[in-house]
Amino acid sequence: MHNYFSSDFKLGILGGGQLGKMMLYDTRKYDIKTYVLDPSTEAPCKIACDVFEQGDLMDFDTVVNFGRKVDVLTFEIELVNVDALEKLESEGKKVYPSAATLRKIQDKGVQKQFYAEKEIPTADFNVFTSKTDLTKAIAKNEWQYPFVWKSCTGGYDGKGVSVIRKEEDLTGLPEASCIAEKMIPFKNELAVIVSRNVSGEVKTYPVVEMEFHPEANQVEYVICPARIENHVAEKARAIATKVSESFEHVGLLAVEMFQTEEDEILVNEVAPRPHNSGHYSIEASFTNQFEQHLRAILDLPLGETESKVGGVMVNLVGDENHEGQVHYQNIEKIMQMPGVTPHIYGKKQTRPFRKMGHVTIVNKDLSEARKIAEEVKKEIKVISKS
Amino acid sequence: MHNYFSSDFKLGILGGGQLGKMMLYDTRKYDIKTYVLDPSTEAPCKIACDVFEQGDLMDFDTVVNFGRKVDVLTFEIELVNVDALEKLESEGKKVYPSAATLRKIQDKGVQKQFYAEKEIPTADFNVFTSKTDLTKAIAKNEWQYPFVWKSCTGGYDGKGVSVIRKEEDLTGLPEASCIAEKMIPFKNELAVIVSRNVSGEVKTYPVVEMEFHPEANQVEYVICPARIENHVAEKARAIATKVSESFEHVGLLAVEMFQTEEDEILVNEVAPRPHNSGHYSIEASFTNQFEQHLRAILDLPLGETESKVGGVMVNLVGDENHEGQVHYQNIEKIMQMPGVTPHIYGKKQTRPFRKMGHVTIVNKDLSEARKIAEEVKKEIKVISKS
Repeated sequence: MHNYFSSDFKLGILGGGQLGKMMLYDTRKYDIKTYVLDPSTEAPCKIACDVFEQGDLMDFDTVVNFGRKVDVLTFEIELVNVDALEKLESEGKKVYPSAATLRKIQDKGVQKQFYAEKEIPTADFNVFTSKTDLTKAIAKNEWQYPFVWKSCTGGYDGKGVSVIRKEEDLTGLPEASCIAEKMIPFKNELAVIVSRNVSGEVKTYPVVEMEFHPEANQVEYVICPARIENHVAEKARAIATKVSESFEHVGLLAVEMFQTEEDEILVNEVAPRPHNSGHYSIEASFTNQFEQHLRAILDLPLGETESKVGGVMVNLVGDENHEGQVHYQNIEKIMQMPGVTPHIYGKKQTRPFRKMGHVTIVNKDLSEARKIAEEVKKEIKVISKS
Repeated sequence: MHNYFSSDFKLGILGGGQLGKMMLYDTRKYDIKTYVLDPSTEAPCKIACDVFEQGDLMDFDTVVNFGRKVDVLTFEIELVNVDALEKLESEGKKVYPSAATLRKIQDKGVQKQFYAEKEIPTADFNVFTSKTDLTKAIAKNEWQYPFVWKSCTGGYDGKGVSVIRKEEDLTGLPEASCIAEKMIPFKNELAVIVSRNVSGEVKTYPVVEMEFHPEANQVEYVICPARIENHVAEKARAIATKVSESFEHVGLLAVEMFQTEEDEILVNEVAPRPHNSGHYSIEASFTNQFEQHLRAILDLPLGETESKVGGVMVNLVGDENHEGQVHYQNIEKIMQMPGVTPHIYGKKQTRPFRKMGHVTIVNKDLSEARKIAEEVKKEIKVISKS
């Protein structure tokens, strides 16, 4: 085994946002040397890595030159130059997850076709090379309203997705290649994080449930474990494992899924990295998702994925009426509640709906955690200083 | 309340060792700006704080100048210049724990006399201004063998302590002021960490037990909760609280105690900071000791101190036959065991018995954790690279 601990080994991370920042806690715990590349000098990772470089993650030369300095390269954001990762791999550099995996995932059309090929259950879909093609297919009745439109590339955090119910809804869409998906009436939106190391050892985390706000149709709570039947949870974990193995994925893969009215599990999409749906694991799991990602890409034995206690996660997003220097109103009030841990990502400026942090609520009794989470949501506000 | 989160508030930490390093994880979690002062440019804290300064913690001017740059000042080691802390307090700086508390604790003679005054149970003792005085007292039969000799100042990590059974044992002792303590036959060595915030809110952690190696007479395992009767645990927590309140202590206070054969609790000594006996809390407690220290000194509400799961902690110390560049032999083997987390402090050079890290073992079943801890001890070795 390579000696990673207090050695000259260097881990490179493309992206210096909150996911990288939380991963750095665990590199520090193990005293693993880290290099981080990010376009912003204000990146949350800047002060917690060994070497920080400012640069464009989509620029071929920047990524190649950065990658050559490290022993293993990973990323905390998908929007990186994949040609550069391929070049580095061709030079013998270890890149995890691989360039091939990332290329399949970056394009939603390719990703969906991959599921179809591998017989992974997913909502019915069609790929269209342009909006014009989509419009023609609708005109010929080869495709019908309502459906979900997704841009093949560039989508992130819910951007690049629209529900199309009638002709007028098409107006605002860009000309880009896209997929159109049948709308699935579902009971639950679920996610499973799969970890797979270089040697092929696989472990899944328990199924988590996204609880939506009844009116706003936004995820309000991520709940672990999901309040679903055991046989459904087992099916979801098995399908997530199949997705990870089909990709020959190394690292973490967050698999988002729908549980249909008939208890079918359909894969929605995946993220090849630590994921918002796994943040609860820092406080609730025997091994948190960031440590697990490190274990996987360094080919160390994977850690235990089960939970110590029930966990609920609430995102802290900028209030819609505030922009400017951030202030976490009532944070001291939520810190009074049992089992509550706020995580502040370190972004100095708030904007409407910007992800500024998250709060984890843990409790031996999950329903108690869920109640406290509601109190947390009522109290804390991400505003700007007046 | 002061706005600590993603603001211009500055926390200063005197000392940049492993305790500071682990505290920095939590300052990052809350995005609190940190300044660290340490004599070594190799200090583990160096890469994880906002501003690192190299300087002598015992030098008056260095500490005063450093303290003037921050809003709240704390320390992770007791060996700092207390006159400088007093000077800073006189200028209105917030120093927690206070200079007065630290002065009482730094001198073991003063500490013991304080316990006597406050009627805090402790082993019978006498303070001697010099070895000469001690020798005279023995000659006059005012003090008898056997006893425990402790240097009043400068002791650390078991240094400055000797068991004196007969005249010859006195030979190696320095001329310094000292205390002599009656030897107490005890069943258990226990510790309680007390947290107390600026407003006076107090919370104690569960009692932990130091399990000694049957032959080597060294602490092998720190176990939480201690395997003792409830009424003894309650007594220990009540006494620890009394100690903290007597000192009007702000921050964490680790209170080390003996449980006598008669189930009396005697206070041995205290440390006014996060402590080795609380490392288990990172994985096992609802609020880890480092976060709790921050909450206390920033006058935030204290977090829940109870445990999610049982915890056992094993220190990783340098093998007695190795010196040089460190190598953690078999670390990948212990990472295969369930609920095992190694913490590597980041010291590049190992020396016999140097504290290089620790390993926490957590499990819903404490006796299972204790068994796995034994496996961990058998496997891992801190050696130098050959």
